[in-house]
Amino acid sequence: MERTEIGSLGEFGLIDHLTKNIEIQNASTVIGVGDDAAVLDHFGKQVVVTNDLLVEGVHFDLMYTPLKHLGYKAVAVNVSDICAMNATPTQIILGLAFSNRFSLEALDEFYEGVYAACEHYGVDLVGGDTTTSQKGFIISCTAIGEVAPDQYVRRSGAKKGDLLCVSGDLGGAYLGLTLLEREKQVYLEAPTVQPDLEDEKYIIGRILKPEARKDIITFLGEAGIMPTSMIDISDGLSSEILHLCKHSEVGCLLYEDKLPIAEDTRLAAFKFNLDPTACALSGGEDYELLFTIRQEDFEKIGNTNDISIVGYITDAEDRAHILTKGGSKHRIEAQGWNAFK
Amino acid sequence: MERTEIGSLGEFGLIDHLTKNIEIQNASTVIGVGDDAAVLDHFGKQVVVTNDLLVEGVHFDLMYTPLKHLGYKAVAVNVSDICAMNATPTQIILGLAFSNRFSLEALDEFYEGVYAACEHYGVDLVGGDTTTSQKGFIISCTAIGEVAPDQYVRRSGAKKGDLLCVSGDLGGAYLGLTLLEREKQVYLEAPTVQPDLEDEKYIIGRILKPEARKDIITFLGEAGIMPTSMIDISDGLSSEILHLCKHSEVGCLLYEDKLPIAEDTRLAAFKFNLDPTACALSGGEDYELLFTIRQEDFEKIGNTNDISIVGYITDAEDRAHILTKGGSKHRIEAQGWNAFK
Repeated sequence: MERTEIGSLGEFGLIDHLTKNIEIQNASTVIGVGDDAAVLDHFGKQVVVTNDLLVEGVHFDLMYTPLKHLGYKAVAVNVSDICAMNATPTQIILGLAFSNRFSLEALDEFYEGVYAACEHYGVDLVGGDTTTSQKGFIISCTAIGEVAPDQYVRRSGAKKGDLLCVSGDLGGAYLGLTLLEREKQVYLEAPTVQPDLEDEKYIIGRILKPEARKDIITFLGEAGIMPTSMIDISDGLSSEILHLCKHSEVGCLLYEDKLPIAEDTRLAAFKFNLDPTACALSGGEDYELLFTIRQEDFEKIGNTNDISIVGYITDAEDRAHILTKGGSKHRIEAQGWNAFK
Repeated sequence: MERTEIGSLGEFGLIDHLTKNIEIQNASTVIGVGDDAAVLDHFGKQVVVTNDLLVEGVHFDLMYTPLKHLGYKAVAVNVSDICAMNATPTQIILGLAFSNRFSLEALDEFYEGVYAACEHYGVDLVGGDTTTSQKGFIISCTAIGEVAPDQYVRRSGAKKGDLLCVSGDLGGAYLGLTLLEREKQVYLEAPTVQPDLEDEKYIIGRILKPEARKDIITFLGEAGIMPTSMIDISDGLSSEILHLCKHSEVGCLLYEDKLPIAEDTRLAAFKFNLDPTACALSGGEDYELLFTIRQEDFEKIGNTNDISIVGYITDAEDRAHILTKGGSKHRIEAQGWNAFK
């Protein structure tokens, strides 16, 4: 494979190369890449901004993460935060630091994924920064969105009696990660063994190419449902439920038998001798949305398969509990991913 | 000195600790830290956004950079990009990645500097991300600002005959860095020798605590001067002049004897056997503003000492040249800092 050293282009040559094919999709993008800063005009809408850092060896392992998927994911996880505010994503800014072990061809692959995500979510890449790192690949992504004045949804609005909803299904990303980590160990011990991952496409897709649920925000808007609170599920359902209860000063009751778990996820859990419910509660990186709606909005959900009612909101003194299939009630405890442990 | 491990707080405990004393200064900050994303309302103004990554070992050396200064600088260099668009800085978002060699006390010091800069520039910290790194300290700062519709200034508006202006003085940061690097070598060879840096306060301040020239933007606004083009001087005057000429499709003539160089900078250059002009042209990190104004705006500059007219804009085919004190004319070449070389 060809290898072009980044140094041969220089910093500005590199930026020109990576951004030369950008086509602006949003009227709100006044000035994009190529000046000291980007200029945006959201025409009377409020602006929503978030930033995430992804660090090699902490958030991803390049041994089994294709760079194109990584580029897509870097955008998707930030877009997910914008969606969790009930806003529409419009722009991203990307900061990258990488060592000289990365070639121009490797960066091009990464940007292919970035641009694929930009196109899918309808967002413009409007700026960034590229620099060197002493070690590893570091991605800083800032996502920007817009929302009609005061239509944003916080973590703090859930009220007693509201229905607790989850989009899509849970636990798949965690099982995909578990599988890839296991295959990595097998490979390190016997590099000639080729893994057969054909049957596990679903869970591997969940960890390597997560999607932000922009479609759910669109659905809720069209159905005339304004969630009372919302958060995206990046660290695991338990952890996010506790955030939502804490900020809203409420408790909740969650039903184990209502948790949305895909058949492929369930089968993979059994293979690994794991409890599918535990994977759904504590496995992170699903990037689904957790939100609450008023009971009177229940009918508006209709018969979409993509939103599950998993429980309801209670008084703060009732705390957050889960009712198991066996009929026993347990306190929900945070077991999500903590970068500092 | 006390040392509290970050792990003892957890990610959310850490964020709570670092952000508990925030006081919002801008009406445009609707929702700050503590949700999936921040919400801003710039009331009919356009939004200006920029991001910079600062990587330990590439952009700073913690051996001689106090963490408080580093926090201040991380904010200042991003605010500088907002100012370079002729906009007013309003918010920042901070992403940090650090290894476990950093204690809570160390982070507190860093944030002291961040908050000092926020107060000085009147910006709100509205969000961020903290995570671990395998090695070193990595800072991602996103700055947001506002500007009245179409009052932003790009790199591309300079016209033949416009006057080339520089704020403050140049070369000091480069000499400060040279001095600190030299003292570091002395220390590594003989750790008991205490450096005497009292006489070099000015140049050390230029590298360790640069200021964004928000005051210049305020002055230009009050004086009724709309620059035709503008860029901040982060990589060195030569490099920035070439950017401006390229984007504006013009040339320029720069006068060596008009370059603003502080007396302390000049003395330090002589001590190091360096040419002060070369330091002003090629030394980076001064974070002054380079801009062009129409000739008819010359009177409006008045007798402020803080803006120097250093040359004028010519036709593109004349290229960018400098006229030396000796009367000879040389092509200006980029010798700024390139992270990839």
